[in-house]
Amino acid sequence: MALPRAWMPLMRSIARSSIRKETSSYLFKRQNLRYYSSKKGSEQQYVIWRPYLRLAIGVPFIGALIYSMITENVTETEAPTIAEIDEALKRQSKINEASPMRLRMEKLIKDQQKKITEELSRIDGKDFRADTWTRPNGGGGISCVLQDGNVFEKAGVNVSVVYGELPRPAIEKMRADHKSFVGSDVESLSFFAAGLSLVLHPHNPNAPTVHLNYRYFETSDPKDPINGDRNWWFGGGTDLTPSYLFPEDCTHFHQTIKEACDRHDSTYYPKFKTWCDKYFYIPHRGEARGVGGIFFDDLDADFLQTSSSSQNPQETLFSFVSDALGSFLPSYVPILERRKDMPYTEKQKEWQQLRRGRYVEFNLVYDRGTSFGLRTPNARVESILMSLPRTASWVYMDPVSGTRTEAAAADEGLVDVEETARERELLDVLKHPRQWA
Amino acid sequence: MALPRAWMPLMRSIARSSIRKETSSYLFKRQNLRYYSSKKGSEQQYVIWRPYLRLAIGVPFIGALIYSMITENVTETEAPTIAEIDEALKRQSKINEASPMRLRMEKLIKDQQKKITEELSRIDGKDFRADTWTRPNGGGGISCVLQDGNVFEKAGVNVSVVYGELPRPAIEKMRADHKSFVGSDVESLSFFAAGLSLVLHPHNPNAPTVHLNYRYFETSDPKDPINGDRNWWFGGGTDLTPSYLFPEDCTHFHQTIKEACDRHDSTYYPKFKTWCDKYFYIPHRGEARGVGGIFFDDLDADFLQTSSSSQNPQETLFSFVSDALGSFLPSYVPILERRKDMPYTEKQKEWQQLRRGRYVEFNLVYDRGTSFGLRTPNARVESILMSLPRTASWVYMDPVSGTRTEAAAADEGLVDVEETARERELLDVLKHPRQWA
Repeated sequence: MALPRAWMPLMRSIARSSIRKETSSYLFKRQNLRYYSSKKGSEQQYVIWRPYLRLAIGVPFIGALIYSMITENVTETEAPTIAEIDEALKRQSKINEASPMRLRMEKLIKDQQKKITEELSRIDGKDFRADTWTRPNGGGGISCVLQDGNVFEKAGVNVSVVYGELPRPAIEKMRADHKSFVGSDVESLSFFAAGLSLVLHPHNPNAPTVHLNYRYFETSDPKDPINGDRNWWFGGGTDLTPSYLFPEDCTHFHQTIKEACDRHDSTYYPKFKTWCDKYFYIPHRGEARGVGGIFFDDLDADFLQTSSSSQNPQETLFSFVSDALGSFLPSYVPILERRKDMPYTEKQKEWQQLRRGRYVEFNLVYDRGTSFGLRTPNARVESILMSLPRTASWVYMDPVSGTRTEAAAADEGLVDVEETARERELLDVLKHPRQWA
Repeated sequence: MALPRAWMPLMRSIARSSIRKETSSYLFKRQNLRYYSSKKGSEQQYVIWRPYLRLAIGVPFIGALIYSMITENVTETEAPTIAEIDEALKRQSKINEASPMRLRMEKLIKDQQKKITEELSRIDGKDFRADTWTRPNGGGGISCVLQDGNVFEKAGVNVSVVYGELPRPAIEKMRADHKSFVGSDVESLSFFAAGLSLVLHPHNPNAPTVHLNYRYFETSDPKDPINGDRNWWFGGGTDLTPSYLFPEDCTHFHQTIKEACDRHDSTYYPKFKTWCDKYFYIPHRGEARGVGGIFFDDLDADFLQTSSSSQNPQETLFSFVSDALGSFLPSYVPILERRKDMPYTEKQKEWQQLRRGRYVEFNLVYDRGTSFGLRTPNARVESILMSLPRTASWVYMDPVSGTRTEAAAADEGLVDVEETARERELLDVLKHPRQWA
């Protein structure tokens, strides 16, 4: 059995006070549970290994581990999972720069969730409702949702932290995205994922919808889950979806994000802005979801080698992600403040509803996170679908945003070119993304 | 060149009046156009062969073909496509029992479209708007939509007729579904598809949404497209999606369809009812889309061999599909008539909107037709998405239909068990499908 060297000092300190011989064999017994996707035609089989017991009080499993090491009675126990080690570390000491990135990312997104929801509550005048949930095989999250508020129709700010096992097809996909991928020849691979997701849908059609997601992903070396090399990467971004175009809003949003990017690497903003335009695109409508922002994925050590020199790539990228996430409130709140109380007409509200229909189309048909989430067994569906707007509508052959060309519609007298100028202005920018910063 | 023997009498009659030597080489020139899916990560490549010229007036291509046969100058021309032959046949004579199934199915669905839209217009008091469209590589359709009517928020009754080429992955999929599949080893395969799709969303939450789709699919033998063996099959069905449960409506709907099925084979209804419950299921919600009806796909000669003896399987199945389609108005109209003017509350309207959100989730995430359609180059998106409701809404953790158990919600005092009895009654039937006939 590979000794978890890195945790030895911690384990020794715990071992002194909490060796519990009687729990050792019981604690590490496991049960195999198989879940099958219920969708017809899907041959894929998800296998989830669920620890039989969750840690109850204290850190008895570490004690048991130490005990078995001391007595050399190691044949009947299994190594603790990463989830169990992280749980113990969190109880043992405060998270700091020496902590594993998993715990630092978890702390970052939880701190930001608190800060963001407090600020949004202040603006709306209504509190977020917070739901804390756990996953049977490790991890959990906090979903904060403010619904039918004064400013927001629906606002969701969710943290999720997941410890799980990747099935073979997911491993194949990840190997394709990462040059040096450890443990690519196994049937299943332990993973950790932590992310903050945010979607805000204000009532006022002049105030834009905004989306943000920052995430960290890690997989272990199956031969040595504790001390072996890890695959890890960051992903994320934020983008703005207005129903009506205010160029100064787009410039402010992009400029604020660009400044955060530029503090780390001047190539980031142009690269991630283009990536965002490409990702948030609705092919069947031939238009972007909104006016973009930044988007990136699979940012690992290899990415950094081609981009800039760094002694500690993980640290460098974490610092960038922290800063990008920190730029969210200053990028969005000033826009919200100046639009949330603007007068609007019923016609403008209906246009916003059509734009929300497009938002639903993108999220349900193309968004990889939503698609992956809905097909994951035991996923918390309510948290995944909090991104959907409170209300949306669809119109067949809408004279402005439908398939027909504007010229054809105008010819038929269905579109008053002057009256629909502002709606057409938005469509134009969705079909031809601009440089805003 | 294989002579299209079956069409010889027709060709001779045309040849007498319309041989046009000068058009022969021009008409059969083709252009290769390549379309790539713009979705990132999709490696699949769609190749579409588009005839360079559409037929203009009369049937000059047949003349050219005959001419080239007469002069034995066949090396420089290609055989006419199935689309071109069908076009000529339609101009030449009335569709009857001796006509190819393609044309008989097209006639059936167009006749039914007319009959159904006339009846629904009569009930609504507002006319359908009809849009006729053509596809660059053969075929087209008629989309009839009634929007913001007196009875219907949105009602779509669409016919589409498509002549196209299947790429390799689609051929693989079809080979898997059909025991004896002709031409499975080629890179692309000509296909024909004709279908009638209908989705009706009434205003009144007491009046159920209904969906219907009947379709015929055919592929040619690539070695002999005109006279070779064909793969063909029928698919279809109809299902009901109420927001509030009226058991007598469900029974009437299912009973009417069952009677149509029973006239052909008593095993059809139970088989297709089960298939329907399985297909219209939303795994991430753990509930059915509605109270079902019938659904079937890939009904070919092999299916019939295991089911009942038939001298002419194609004729037998066409007769069944005609009858099933014919049972639509009697299965739905009596329900609509008794529900469309019932009084309802704002709360009931909001519940209907949540149910429509689920309808959107099924259609955009799971429905194979929608998914295939949205990813098909040159598809008519407005016709595909006419199935989406006019309006829909989403609520995070709805006390009745959200993820939380009813007991947990009631404990928290969020759900008045008596007040939500009718909503819970619907959910119960969506989670536990019943036998209605």
